[in-house]
Amino acid sequence: MSATRKPNSKEASPSGAELTTALAAQPLYAQVEAIFVDRIRTGVWRPGQLIPSEFELAREIGVSQGTVRKALNALAVDNLVERRQGRGTFVAEHTPDKMLFRFFNLFEDGGGHIEPDSQNTRMSIARANKEERERLKLDVGAEVIRVSRVRTHAGKPMIYETIVLPRQFFPGLVKEKTIPNTLYDHFQKEYGLTVSHGEERITAVAAGEREAKALEIAPGLPLIRLDRTMYALNEAPIEWRVSICLLSGAHYLVRLR
Amino acid sequence: MSATRKPNSKEASPSGAELTTALAAQPLYAQVEAIFVDRIRTGVWRPGQLIPSEFELAREIGVSQGTVRKALNALAVDNLVERRQGRGTFVAEHTPDKMLFRFFNLFEDGGGHIEPDSQNTRMSIARANKEERERLKLDVGAEVIRVSRVRTHAGKPMIYETIVLPRQFFPGLVKEKTIPNTLYDHFQKEYGLTVSHGEERITAVAAGEREAKALEIAPGLPLIRLDRTMYALNEAPIEWRVSICLLSGAHYLVRLR
Repeated sequence: MSATRKPNSKEASPSGAELTTALAAQPLYAQVEAIFVDRIRTGVWRPGQLIPSEFELAREIGVSQGTVRKALNALAVDNLVERRQGRGTFVAEHTPDKMLFRFFNLFEDGGGHIEPDSQNTRMSIARANKEERERLKLDVGAEVIRVSRVRTHAGKPMIYETIVLPRQFFPGLVKEKTIPNTLYDHFQKEYGLTVSHGEERITAVAAGEREAKALEIAPGLPLIRLDRTMYALNEAPIEWRVSICLLSGAHYLVRLR
Repeated sequence: MSATRKPNSKEASPSGAELTTALAAQPLYAQVEAIFVDRIRTGVWRPGQLIPSEFELAREIGVSQGTVRKALNALAVDNLVERRQGRGTFVAEHTPDKMLFRFFNLFEDGGGHIEPDSQNTRMSIARANKEERERLKLDVGAEVIRVSRVRTHAGKPMIYETIVLPRQFFPGLVKEKTIPNTLYDHFQKEYGLTVSHGEERITAVAAGEREAKALEIAPGLPLIRLDRTMYALNEAPIEWRVSICLLSGAHYLVRLR
């Protein structure tokens, strides 16, 4: 993947003609689903927009209404569209609440979902170092935006966070006076980037000097380290984030199914 | 919930007559799904068994074949049945591999799924203490089986684990000479208990004396603590497990969607 590839570039939306070629090995509804994902990815369908009816989409693409319905149901399971009873199907819009619910897994031991604030946000631009290039699949010479901040809960520092973003995807970000507390809905609204999925690797670390200072604790205390990569709809990595968390009276929750 | 409630007791399987009463608020396929879950839970349908065809089930229950298909698809999503092309639908059988894949989230940093061995397994019976009663929803006086073991990977100690099980659900377990490395498939085969789902709470801890000895490390090192409760199909808690993990060259992986 090239460093200059744009995840949401406005390339032509695929048409029904493509159904018979590149995607032909998949079931029909999955081929239709891929067309719809591409419309969302490229901004043909915008967040919050009401999309055409199943009847209209079926006629346009030349498949049955049942196939369109199956494709839209699959998109709804992936949180890409929302089906509203009696009103139609809308492209899912990222909101701070929804993003926290999907991608933030810290809970109070009593059960409440933690919604952290942000403090001391710093931003800088740099050439990506080797590790950043590997994690974000960037070419030598590509620039990144580095963000560091302390996230607080109930007034106390809880997370020391460093975020690395490929600069090319966020052209105006460094000019923003303040960046918002929840980033993913901002990415979608301002930069047309839908954070689609990712992975988080959890380990334990002893607090170093920097974390100890940021979290106002003694060095050496055991902390949770979350190492996260998030991807856009086209599988391009768009964020690498390391969160060092002081979990006192709180935990990271995983549901096992 | 009473301490003597058996998750998989052989009570009468619900019949079509019940469709119109207790479950009537749910969509029809969900009502049919609940009937099937109960047949698996009570052992009317056994792990590995081929269940009747959609046609037969539809006629028996008095719903359409499409409704039966929807119910079976929902069960397949929950890993309770397996649909095999051209062969029919089978009650899912727990195997060591499948259980590890579903419920064990430790990976090598290189990407490989860790399949730990077990050492120094000890078992004892005791009256449940207050915390055990709370976690396993047991009455005062109920007995538990306490298991402790060290799990190794590539020959090195990796996890110090304590497992608490309500004794009533596992009548013969304490008489077993050795208990297997992977427990959940054993629970299903020997005790008819299907581990259906659960939750895992992750925190960081400093190694205490006991963990340090078991894991052959210095006290004070940062470790991951996994605190897990697993439930049977009827939502009864059947296992409380605390795993203290030394993650060197490894991590706990969470997929974010």
